[in-house]
Amino acid sequence: MIEIAILGYGVVGSGVAEICRMNRSVIQNRIGRYIHVKRILDIRDFPDDPFADRMTKDADLIFSDSAIQVVVETIGGAEIAYELTRRALQSGKHVVTSNKELVAAFGPELMLLAQENNVKYLFEASVGGGIPIIRPLSKCLAANVIEGIAGILNGTTNFILTRMEQDGIDFAGALTEAQSLGYAEQDPVADVDGIDACRKIAILASIATGQYIDSTLIYTEGIRNITSEDMAYAFRLGCKLKLIGRYQRLPDETCRLIVAPMFVPRDHPIAVADGVFNAILVDGNALGEALFYGQGAGRLPTASAVVADVIECALSTESISRSAPWRKSDRTLIRAHDACQVCALVRLDRSVSVDSIRETLKKTSIEWLESAAEGELAFVAGADGELTESDLELALSAWPGKVVNRIRLY
Amino acid sequence: MIEIAILGYGVVGSGVAEICRMNRSVIQNRIGRYIHVKRILDIRDFPDDPFADRMTKDADLIFSDSAIQVVVETIGGAEIAYELTRRALQSGKHVVTSNKELVAAFGPELMLLAQENNVKYLFEASVGGGIPIIRPLSKCLAANVIEGIAGILNGTTNFILTRMEQDGIDFAGALTEAQSLGYAEQDPVADVDGIDACRKIAILASIATGQYIDSTLIYTEGIRNITSEDMAYAFRLGCKLKLIGRYQRLPDETCRLIVAPMFVPRDHPIAVADGVFNAILVDGNALGEALFYGQGAGRLPTASAVVADVIECALSTESISRSAPWRKSDRTLIRAHDACQVCALVRLDRSVSVDSIRETLKKTSIEWLESAAEGELAFVAGADGELTESDLELALSAWPGKVVNRIRLY
Repeated sequence: MIEIAILGYGVVGSGVAEICRMNRSVIQNRIGRYIHVKRILDIRDFPDDPFADRMTKDADLIFSDSAIQVVVETIGGAEIAYELTRRALQSGKHVVTSNKELVAAFGPELMLLAQENNVKYLFEASVGGGIPIIRPLSKCLAANVIEGIAGILNGTTNFILTRMEQDGIDFAGALTEAQSLGYAEQDPVADVDGIDACRKIAILASIATGQYIDSTLIYTEGIRNITSEDMAYAFRLGCKLKLIGRYQRLPDETCRLIVAPMFVPRDHPIAVADGVFNAILVDGNALGEALFYGQGAGRLPTASAVVADVIECALSTESISRSAPWRKSDRTLIRAHDACQVCALVRLDRSVSVDSIRETLKKTSIEWLESAAEGELAFVAGADGELTESDLELALSAWPGKVVNRIRLY
Repeated sequence: MIEIAILGYGVVGSGVAEICRMNRSVIQNRIGRYIHVKRILDIRDFPDDPFADRMTKDADLIFSDSAIQVVVETIGGAEIAYELTRRALQSGKHVVTSNKELVAAFGPELMLLAQENNVKYLFEASVGGGIPIIRPLSKCLAANVIEGIAGILNGTTNFILTRMEQDGIDFAGALTEAQSLGYAEQDPVADVDGIDACRKIAILASIATGQYIDSTLIYTEGIRNITSEDMAYAFRLGCKLKLIGRYQRLPDETCRLIVAPMFVPRDHPIAVADGVFNAILVDGNALGEALFYGQGAGRLPTASAVVADVIECALSTESISRSAPWRKSDRTLIRAHDACQVCALVRLDRSVSVDSIRETLKKTSIEWLESAAEGELAFVAGADGELTESDLELALSAWPGKVVNRIRLY
């Protein structure tokens, strides 16, 4: 028997309890033990819940209970969750979480604290929901230099973009629908503005490099200003429009990191992910490209990854070097956004002259597109690799009030 | 330092040595140790090879060397490889392999022998080449009942089918091309007749069930009789034609297993794999569907998975229950092929009367297709779920010499 406690009985936390009950016998058959949820901490009351008898509001009951080996943190956020995770690790308990905000903000500190207390801090469920990605990246690709990672990492925005693309709904309508279906929070900022995807690519990049990547340093754009016309351009380009989190290793050992909507060719493997699905493409120098695809969110899928980590904690006595904390580097790992190369669709008011565009962007190539909206010009700049983000911003600043949108090509 | 020996210096074995050298520093940074290839066993001579100084023809030099922790078996086949794997395990050395034939034939015995000697027998590279699938399936999905697995598991046949579909080449021409590119062996039987895919789905099904699935009991068809006309029907059906290995858990705790060419809808995630790529879809009762995609073969991709297993062996002291051998069941796990439900495209000589077809298949639905070849009738039978494999075979036997082909729908 593996005894666990769950901190936070919300969507994922209650899913963890349900899987431990529903799949008790398959877990028992597979590893010779079942998982027993001994305590559940929540400030709310759940009098009619099947686990009502395990509920407590007193965290000390959990931390002082030597029978509890693994603590599941499904509170979310980086405040109470941070305090309780620290206390759990200091109490000598493994901690397993789906909390990307906490891992992205305090990963190195919590991993170090786990190491000092000879326990594990695992977070497979923090990226890609139930899709196996953290363990494959850190273990199956352990013999690879990771050259790049690109992911559709947020199911909410992918649902919105898919509805806009396939059904012609506008952003506001698709967001409202996502909220009514429970795919988006009432306050959708973290999803819609790319913050959630940014935390996830930061976690993946930290695993790839072994060095802590601070998510707050990553250039991030969300999808608020995507319109039906942009979807028409996606069609013209033979692409889908996706919110992409991307890590690229550069030859000088720095890296490029960006979160932004991008046009992705329709036959690119990553474009397979529509709706709430996620897809993550990893490029290793020996493996080549591998894709991981599945439900990036949801109660049972995410809980499934949490329970897998619980099992690993309980069974493994792997040497501590394997889960060494991410190093904090004193040099700048992330290449300045301005200096990065870019290729983008640019939509300008038709009052801008073609000569002015040619002159302003003379360093790079321009490929004209048939306009998808009245009164505008559209072209792809930078396909020859001769355009930087700062070049592009400078060019666009030459036409104040005339820029309808600009969206990068993957 | 992790000291290893490589048995068999062919494509994968030499790739393992190359990765240990090429990615030495990234491995050192990640796990605090590098991998040193101390000995390489091969009956051939490689006087000009960079590893020529480690070559030996004497296996005892390896098994008696207490410094060697991990033995990499990349000989292939189930004869010499079997003997040497037994001796390595009995010598107290972990064994890592890419040899699906050996795992499919002797997996339970070798896993048990490893357990008795308190070492590991790992085979991530045996399925999907470099694609992480064995470890994700056994660890990341440990909390799931595995409801189904479907895979494009053989890169050679997928290359041939992709060339036939996209470029109109016939089977013989595509096979010759695959051979000249090194994707197919001079004796292509194991690939073309589905034997390789069959071994791989047997390994995956054994992991899913925890019980040994004997690959020789799995109904298996290859792709030899696939023609350009079949590709035309694939197009008409909105499908791609793929060699699929499939496991389905049935409600009575038995399972269905089959390897056969199947029409797969073009927008199905598994259809993303063209050319030498593989894709494996896993359905867990908590996770839902997850897809794993990448290069299913090739020197460095496959070697990358082998080296990941080497690292796991060297670092992990995970309790033995996790890698418990597959149980051998005394009851029949695999449902009789004849009794399984099927939906298939049937191509008949036009001399067969429509009335005869309707009468012979009156139990099930018939959907007529526009013929893609002169002088034939084509229809899909069994879309209503009312047709078994034996029903279909019985029906086809009513028209001796008149059946052009019959291919299942996924």
